[in-house]
Amino acid sequence: MRLTSGCPVLPIFLFLLLLGLLSPGRARRPPAASRPAASYRTCHLPQQVDHFGFVENRTFQQRYLIADQHWKKDGGSILFYTGNEGDITWFCNNTGFMWEVAEELNAMLVFAEHRYYGESLPFGNKSFSDSKHLNYLTSEQALADFAILIQHIRKTIPGAQNTPVIAIGGSYGGMLAAWLRMKYPHVVDGALAASAPIWQFQDLVPCSVFNRIVTNDFKKSGKGCSESIRNSWEAIKRVSSTGEGLQWLSSAFHLCSPLKSSQDAAALKAWLSETWVNLAMVNYPYKADFLQPLPAWPIQVVCKFLKDPSLSGKLLLQNIFQAVNIYYNYSGVASCLNISHTATKNLGEVGWYYQACTEMVMPMCTDGVNDMFEPQKWDFQAFSEECFKLWGVRPRPSWITSVYGGKNISSHSNIIFSNGGLDPWSGGGVTQNITNSLVAIVIPEGAHHLDLRSSNPCDPKSVRQARALEVHYMKQWIEKARQRH
Amino acid sequence: MRLTSGCPVLPIFLFLLLLGLLSPGRARRPPAASRPAASYRTCHLPQQVDHFGFVENRTFQQRYLIADQHWKKDGGSILFYTGNEGDITWFCNNTGFMWEVAEELNAMLVFAEHRYYGESLPFGNKSFSDSKHLNYLTSEQALADFAILIQHIRKTIPGAQNTPVIAIGGSYGGMLAAWLRMKYPHVVDGALAASAPIWQFQDLVPCSVFNRIVTNDFKKSGKGCSESIRNSWEAIKRVSSTGEGLQWLSSAFHLCSPLKSSQDAAALKAWLSETWVNLAMVNYPYKADFLQPLPAWPIQVVCKFLKDPSLSGKLLLQNIFQAVNIYYNYSGVASCLNISHTATKNLGEVGWYYQACTEMVMPMCTDGVNDMFEPQKWDFQAFSEECFKLWGVRPRPSWITSVYGGKNISSHSNIIFSNGGLDPWSGGGVTQNITNSLVAIVIPEGAHHLDLRSSNPCDPKSVRQARALEVHYMKQWIEKARQRH
Repeated sequence: MRLTSGCPVLPIFLFLLLLGLLSPGRARRPPAASRPAASYRTCHLPQQVDHFGFVENRTFQQRYLIADQHWKKDGGSILFYTGNEGDITWFCNNTGFMWEVAEELNAMLVFAEHRYYGESLPFGNKSFSDSKHLNYLTSEQALADFAILIQHIRKTIPGAQNTPVIAIGGSYGGMLAAWLRMKYPHVVDGALAASAPIWQFQDLVPCSVFNRIVTNDFKKSGKGCSESIRNSWEAIKRVSSTGEGLQWLSSAFHLCSPLKSSQDAAALKAWLSETWVNLAMVNYPYKADFLQPLPAWPIQVVCKFLKDPSLSGKLLLQNIFQAVNIYYNYSGVASCLNISHTATKNLGEVGWYYQACTEMVMPMCTDGVNDMFEPQKWDFQAFSEECFKLWGVRPRPSWITSVYGGKNISSHSNIIFSNGGLDPWSGGGVTQNITNSLVAIVIPEGAHHLDLRSSNPCDPKSVRQARALEVHYMKQWIEKARQRH
Repeated sequence: MRLTSGCPVLPIFLFLLLLGLLSPGRARRPPAASRPAASYRTCHLPQQVDHFGFVENRTFQQRYLIADQHWKKDGGSILFYTGNEGDITWFCNNTGFMWEVAEELNAMLVFAEHRYYGESLPFGNKSFSDSKHLNYLTSEQALADFAILIQHIRKTIPGAQNTPVIAIGGSYGGMLAAWLRMKYPHVVDGALAASAPIWQFQDLVPCSVFNRIVTNDFKKSGKGCSESIRNSWEAIKRVSSTGEGLQWLSSAFHLCSPLKSSQDAAALKAWLSETWVNLAMVNYPYKADFLQPLPAWPIQVVCKFLKDPSLSGKLLLQNIFQAVNIYYNYSGVASCLNISHTATKNLGEVGWYYQACTEMVMPMCTDGVNDMFEPQKWDFQAFSEECFKLWGVRPRPSWITSVYGGKNISSHSNIIFSNGGLDPWSGGGVTQNITNSLVAIVIPEGAHHLDLRSSNPCDPKSVRQARALEVHYMKQWIEKARQRH
């Protein structure tokens, strides 16, 4: 899930979006990963650019990765990662859970890249050039890609014809895993939807829930922490009201590009908000490198700088800098901080912004009382205007509920919804069992899809139990599917 | 279901298609119906032209009809007719079953028109002008229209919020009813899919099954009948080989436009084939007027002229004329027969031909041995070429199975598949129970969705029992849905 959709400050959110768009150096290739590369082969499948219309008959190459070291033709399974908004090799390297359970489930691992991300670009470098080229970037098209890819694999790999398939995904990819099972139950026999906020849409949950969870994470991680952050907005406002103040801020925050206007100061605030949100998502119990290289329980580390909410003005802001510097410069190599970026470049920002402006309309709001952010109502009209300015398209806020059912999904089956209690996205997730095969698993000490990560000595017991339960359900569904064939 | 997809002679089928396209007088408005009009009100809902993309943001008015005389807010239900390829008022007047059960089920009746048919034209009179305008004519778009319409009705009609909904449709509309339940189970609680050949697609059933059933209907309806028809093709070939013979044929068949070439003679054969197919579809046990005004058991009447298969040449063809004249001129008012038409103008030919050339690729073949038609293999390549010539689009023969599951649909629920044993479309239908809530009902003496028609004193017992069982299941699903709310 892109962090920026968690940004509570709408106009700035869109300003940042624009910066993101204009940023000339946006890399779409994976960086030379420092992680040990998993062993897989890379394949491509020609897919229709438009599954739902016939005038556009071009195809594009969808990338997918296959690892079949542990696959057994008899009694095996396929674990199919429903790629989300980023480079699939990055997800492949960040979903240790699948690698760890492959042997136990005799599973072939398949990681499918989502169209318009990574290298699976329908129109090459023109894919993002305008709304016409972006028109085929929807969840429905992506699900059709996945369904056809699975059918292709079953058809072409000897012995795979009747192999049961479990879809697995996290965040937006978790939503896709759940929706794939709902819409194509003939293709996947079950789904693990990790940290999938399928209800973070119009009228299904309060728009405030996301930022309240972020706030709680900070509140629990250190005395005075969330209050300090809440006080920082006023401090920035006051300091940035003069030219000298803007200069001071630029210098104090080691910014790569100095702030020059009140608009820039608003961008600084949005960047800070996103940073706190991102920290809540990656508040893992051990040193990790998901969105950024970070220490164990990074919010606790951050909060060490934010113990005194009685501070104000520049003193407070110096501490705020120390805190965000943990997020942006834990490795100590950053010479300056760039407020147009908040996370890894492996995520496809432009694509996700387009999706947020069309289908993936996730209302967010803050009140500054029950959360630590500046108060900001959810203003759909303003949002729609900005989307139209940027892309020439209008969001359709009720479509996702119309097409995927909102809270009325009880007639589906075989889906695990796992959520971390620390994860702000859990506010829009399924956290209670719906039926005995639409099951919820809550990991109180878990941040964003902790369960999909490699196991770690510092893992809390709850995530170990969650993974064991997930494997239990998957085995059950695989066995049932096998009996059916 | 459009008859022409049952035509076993591909090149001629497409020739006829062209005639249909060029036919200047194609009415899209319903004729002044002679039937007593059912009492309903006509409504319209703005629908997105493209539910699956955001560049095309225009809307069109979908027409639907509502009859709520018997609806009760408490304990009631909604029976939702998923309109197929034609004017919805015509289907409304030909689905007596729904009117007859409305009171028993305290049901509101809704008849939804399918986009691109009747008056629900996304681009007005430009809707069929080219493939760009036709691009939004797909089953997926139609299902989305239906889902959104039901959600609209539930939201806007006081007391309808939690009313259970059963989708009902026949033929292509039956496929849509089943698919609506499969894809939008949060919107409809069950479906009655009458004479819905959801398996008449690539590799799911033999391409010969349809025409074998047609042939059997004739074989059973009179001695020598199917043999006479089988012999007629050779007779036409021989007679039409000379200019004098073409003249004779034109006169003997009372054709409005005289045959002038061997191509015209091929068109005559295709028209005859379609006529036999249509007769099989509407072989009802009582006088009826569905595709044409016809006597009870029309094939038996037709076969009275075709008792002597030993006849050949012009003698045989004179009898063939007498036989088809039953179909085209039972009312006795036709001054000549027009081989570019085989059925009511309430069906939207152009739209259906486009659908057949894109998604609705239903392989058909004949061998002249096990059926009474000229041998014709299923030639996908030739079909694809013709589609491309006509529309600039290519058919995707495996898509329907990919998206709707083919024979692997057991994880769905609450669908009745009813089929008539006389109906050629039953060959592609579900005629055996799949689970205890995916149930098949076979009506041995039934033609095309006889069960959806008004009850009649001449109804065979099997259709009475079928209707009773259908009501039984609907009540059960309505009750379950009510308990859930």
